[in-house]
Amino acid sequence: MNKVYVVGIGPGSADGMTEQARRALSAADVLCGYTVYIDLVKGLFPEKRILTTSMRQELKRCREALNMAAEGQTVALVCSGDAGVYGMASPLLQLASEYPEVEVEIVPGVTAALSGAALLGAPLGNDFCVISLSDLLTPWDEIEKRLRLAAEGDFAVCLYNPGSRNRADYLRKACDILLAAGKSPKTRCGWVREIGRPGQKRRILTLEELREEAADMFTTVFIGSSSTVFMNDWLVTPRGYGNL
Amino acid sequence: MNKVYVVGIGPGSADGMTEQARRALSAADVLCGYTVYIDLVKGLFPEKRILTTSMRQELKRCREALNMAAEGQTVALVCSGDAGVYGMASPLLQLASEYPEVEVEIVPGVTAALSGAALLGAPLGNDFCVISLSDLLTPWDEIEKRLRLAAEGDFAVCLYNPGSRNRADYLRKACDILLAAGKSPKTRCGWVREIGRPGQKRRILTLEELREEAADMFTTVFIGSSSTVFMNDWLVTPRGYGNL
Repeated sequence: MNKVYVVGIGPGSADGMTEQARRALSAADVLCGYTVYIDLVKGLFPEKRILTTSMRQELKRCREALNMAAEGQTVALVCSGDAGVYGMASPLLQLASEYPEVEVEIVPGVTAALSGAALLGAPLGNDFCVISLSDLLTPWDEIEKRLRLAAEGDFAVCLYNPGSRNRADYLRKACDILLAAGKSPKTRCGWVREIGRPGQKRRILTLEELREEAADMFTTVFIGSSSTVFMNDWLVTPRGYGNL
Repeated sequence: MNKVYVVGIGPGSADGMTEQARRALSAADVLCGYTVYIDLVKGLFPEKRILTTSMRQELKRCREALNMAAEGQTVALVCSGDAGVYGMASPLLQLASEYPEVEVEIVPGVTAALSGAALLGAPLGNDFCVISLSDLLTPWDEIEKRLRLAAEGDFAVCLYNPGSRNRADYLRKACDILLAAGKSPKTRCGWVREIGRPGQKRRILTLEELREEAADMFTTVFIGSSSTVFMNDWLVTPRGYGNL
């Protein structure tokens, strides 16, 4: 069948995958995607053809998936978390217009904003922004502006890609922008690492403490609104259900 | 076991539920929640005790779940979509500090921002905001300010609770705020209704067209950034993978 499923597999283990995602992978002849994500699912489907590509090969990966589908295969393009949130759905759909014979189905999944929030409590219990600190694909000026406006709007904020080897100081830069935009140094924050995978870690801390933390590409960061509180060991953004 | 699971069951059908959510429901003695959501899962677990409450009984529902857990039961508090995004995780955790003997586990799920986006394409392919138009729990001034800042930051925006019987004109008001804040009338938008349920609908349209639409509490609305495009029948926000 000439079809590409773009599949969000959730945070990591099979446990975080929806039935719909499992069915899409099961229907596919070929599983393709970034090596690390394919490793998370190939054990479940040992009989499938596998095509892995390395980081920063996103367009090549989409093109290959579409070419295989055009040849009559059913292809699952595997994404960590959700298919759409910084995932492959967007580039795949842009290229798919060149392949009118290929059917595309996007299968959503639990993105790190949700799975990370659940480990910390409920930091995204009211209005929130999701911002990536990676300036590979978005100019830093634009990221900085969005951080400033998120602070001004008193949104809770979830940061993706808060750091990497080449961007070791980006989380600190982001914290400084938020502080300069008026967020309190005592703002309640948290981070999670390797969600749903071996070595999973979590920490809740203040914004001034967060500024001192190291973060890598497996870390997701949460910055509270002015209403966010610590409740025991949880990070919670109330939605205003009155005086509890 | 003195335990409350707060469980996001995804968009509606069993298909959108994660394995982790299914396991939590299965481990529970009692399923409790808003009638409409309980109806979505009780068929899967006909043997469970069921406790349903009506709308706007959120705190009562949390209190009952905690009381039952304090008496030794394992309770699953069922949320549509995710447990944390405008869900029960936040009020439950606020009350849980009064019940030190009760263990709480938050089980994330696919929220409407993700499941709705997947039906439309990839509107949340780059930085985005999630804003609820319900002013029951948030003052309208604050909602208006967030809409304005979201427009200024050129975020893609996902709107929850865009309308109801008593708030029939809220989506139009929100569109007018975004237009006044400088968003083009031609901004690419979309909405979905009854995601994953019988009667599911989707539409892609411009912001000036969206302004004329009716929306209810089962509708989720997506407003693109300035980069969002229509690709065939899809709504796609590119992430800047160069000239495709």
